[in-house]
Amino acid sequence: MSAFKLFINRLSTIHLIVLFYLFAVLFSTILISIPYFHQTGVGLSFIDTLFTAVSAISVTGLTVVSTAETFNAVGKVVLAIILQFGGIGIMTLGTFIWIILGKKVGLRGRQLIKIDQNRTTFSGLVKLMISIFKIILIIELFGTIVLSTYFLSYFDTWQEALLQGFFGAVSATTNAGFDITGSSLIPFAHDYFVQFINMVLLILGAIGFPVLIEVQDLLSGNYRDINNKYHFSLFTKITSFTFFSLLLAGWLAIYVLERNAFLADKLWHEKIFYSLFQSVTTRNGGLATMDVSDFTIPTLLVICILMFIGASPSSVGGGIRTTTFAIMLLAILNHAKGKSSIKVYGREIDPDDINRSFIVITTAIMLCATAIIFLASIEPFPIIEIIFEVCSAFGTTGLSMGITSELSTIGKCVIIFMMFVGRIGIFSFLFLMRGKETRDLYHYPKEKVIIG
Amino acid sequence: MSAFKLFINRLSTIHLIVLFYLFAVLFSTILISIPYFHQTGVGLSFIDTLFTAVSAISVTGLTVVSTAETFNAVGKVVLAIILQFGGIGIMTLGTFIWIILGKKVGLRGRQLIKIDQNRTTFSGLVKLMISIFKIILIIELFGTIVLSTYFLSYFDTWQEALLQGFFGAVSATTNAGFDITGSSLIPFAHDYFVQFINMVLLILGAIGFPVLIEVQDLLSGNYRDINNKYHFSLFTKITSFTFFSLLLAGWLAIYVLERNAFLADKLWHEKIFYSLFQSVTTRNGGLATMDVSDFTIPTLLVICILMFIGASPSSVGGGIRTTTFAIMLLAILNHAKGKSSIKVYGREIDPDDINRSFIVITTAIMLCATAIIFLASIEPFPIIEIIFEVCSAFGTTGLSMGITSELSTIGKCVIIFMMFVGRIGIFSFLFLMRGKETRDLYHYPKEKVIIG
Ligand SMILES: [K+]
Ligand SMILES: [K+]
Repeated sequence: MSAFKLFINRLSTIHLIVLFYLFAVLFSTILISIPYFHQTGVGLSFIDTLFTAVSAISVTGLTVVSTAETFNAVGKVVLAIILQFGGIGIMTLGTFIWIILGKKVGLRGRQLIKIDQNRTTFSGLVKLMISIFKIILIIELFGTIVLSTYFLSYFDTWQEALLQGFFGAVSATTNAGFDITGSSLIPFAHDYFVQFINMVLLILGAIGFPVLIEVQDLLSGNYRDINNKYHFSLFTKITSFTFFSLLLAGWLAIYVLERNAFLADKLWHEKIFYSLFQSVTTRNGGLATMDVSDFTIPTLLVICILMFIGASPSSVGGGIRTTTFAIMLLAILNHAKGKSSIKVYGREIDPDDINRSFIVITTAIMLCATAIIFLASIEPFPIIEIIFEVCSAFGTTGLSMGITSELSTIGKCVIIFMMFVGRIGIFSFLFLMRGKETRDLYHYPKEKVIIG
Repeated sequence: MSAFKLFINRLSTIHLIVLFYLFAVLFSTILISIPYFHQTGVGLSFIDTLFTAVSAISVTGLTVVSTAETFNAVGKVVLAIILQFGGIGIMTLGTFIWIILGKKVGLRGRQLIKIDQNRTTFSGLVKLMISIFKIILIIELFGTIVLSTYFLSYFDTWQEALLQGFFGAVSATTNAGFDITGSSLIPFAHDYFVQFINMVLLILGAIGFPVLIEVQDLLSGNYRDINNKYHFSLFTKITSFTFFSLLLAGWLAIYVLERNAFLADKLWHEKIFYSLFQSVTTRNGGLATMDVSDFTIPTLLVICILMFIGASPSSVGGGIRTTTFAIMLLAILNHAKGKSSIKVYGREIDPDDINRSFIVITTAIMLCATAIIFLASIEPFPIIEIIFEVCSAFGTTGLSMGITSELSTIGKCVIIFMMFVGRIGIFSFLFLMRGKETRDLYHYPKEKVIIG
């Protein structure tokens, strides 16, 4: 065995993931800093280069410089490739963590991923990455063709239409939220076709890789039972239900809260599309068809919560993830009903998963609260803009009320940290700080205490 | 058995508690509305009467009218008596819930409370109330004597000094936060003796009844083991440690965050006492030696978190309670360390308690967030003032940035609801909505899902 393989084998998978990210950030930082990729006369400070690299690798989309004005055509393609690998890396690793940490994943899960669960090898990771790569590439190809063709009527040259279509498709599918229009999707605020295609791409990227694989299986007729019926996994059912429930709830909340404010003077179809698109984008996209600063504070807080929850696990999205939120709600409801186990879709939730969900949520809340209070003590911006920025970074959403580029260097470092944690996930973050798992060699008597 | 006893026996204890509160609120509302207790020419609207009654019964201390200017001397004594019963009722019922729901409470717990744990009878509740009444009365008597004597130099007549001393002692011990000076403890901003006595009374009221009982046992030499050593319960150790840790953390945070702001032009002893007193008061007191609106936003957010956590269970305080917060932190730390059980002070925490803590915290956060967003959508005040008001109501702390009396009627109803829930506790709140506890008659196969 080579020295490299020996080194890799001695690391836990989570350490490997973090190493992967650090390496990816380093590589992207160097790549982005090369003047050849910049527009003539544009310079980038180190912190801004690092910020852009972390934002791209974590497919967050918060930007301290205008992508359109900083990078030339080649630079934009390079950025799209970084987004591509950022997005795919995240999906791969998210799924991988699931396989490794969720020891009880059924046979189907292992078949899907086509790796041996007991061997956390490098080759397994590569195989998984290739199968994800294929799915993502097909989605992006579809997006690029549709958007580029359509953009021929928007832009003067076919080259520009192709670049915009390609970048738009990659940015939407990876939920990166980067834009090269200079103002997100605001130019398409009244083009419902572009919005529709973008929403489809955003949802496909954020719904989670296992869901995509299972839908592919369903369509191709694989894995049907003797009655020729396809069975979705519990994960797919919970995450899809939660994903679309959040989407609908966000749509409704934005519509109701803004009906007398931002939406007051809009036509009925504008009301529908403005609220729908902004709800979809909070799942993880970060693209916007309007300036979110125009929303009222209650709407902004709702968006903060939606960004904090984020997308499905094993997707390109961040935040605490949909399943974590769903299991918390189920646990509270079941407790209130006096039931001892959570039954859903003819299955029971593992008590370990309930415990994990609560740990992830409370840790995430404490982390975000700390970041908000710290930023509020060093930055001069209104508190709502800081809350919004932190939730957007943790959810790797990339929406902003506009303070990103005005943050101090320390402030940028805090946001970089939040994007990083939001990306690798609280669960991996806690695992990073984890010692060796220990079996209890002794026990103390249990004693009850009074709870709230 | 009489019809009344039959009715009482058919209700669960938690229903009984809520009935008690509703009855107490009704009775107080009627009492407070009697013009005989008002200053001449002062009228009170229904919503303001109800608000004052709920605030008094829940010993929160948020006020929509000036207590000093609304009530005459007799009215102030009546209010003090309502606070008294509110505070004692809460301690009694809090302890009672502990006894009833914490089935595994040790023999000592039952001895302390001197009731049979399996009989949730009315007489047990009365016995408990009397023993709490005695302790509280002794503390208040001490406070009244010290403060009244000292106040002889502040006020013109001994009657006024006695009224101020009596009301001050009751308001501090029950952590009610009501004041009849017209401006909380601001007149004593430079009187460290009054502040010290107030802090002692606040802490004794908020530290929790079981702690007081155990300290009493320690001092009287009861319950010593064969080595003549006294053993505190796990509850007393956890809640005391958390209580004083939060107090210190708050002191430090306020000091650091305000050293260049509110505290910038203050003398060193003023810096110490302003930050210390405001930290103590966030545990539950609600009295203040300054206008909290003068603090910067980061400090206000820290105070919001401290108020949200609140005081010890089985105390006069509200919020999620210290033990709930402590167990959450321990669970996260233990998870990060890869340990499967929480060992603390030579005991293990019951897994049920861990689950309960997480449920209480997440439910509380969702409730407060909903209240904040709802209030933000109907009230014109800055978001920080709304966040502060909601946290203060839920923690039954009673600090305010000054918007309480300007809230709309619906806004006042929201705050009334939050005070009520903060008082009975999330745990009882969830229990209220609970169906019959069901044993699982069947099980589904367990299936893992991916968590954040
Ligand atoms: K994003
Ligand atoms: K209070």
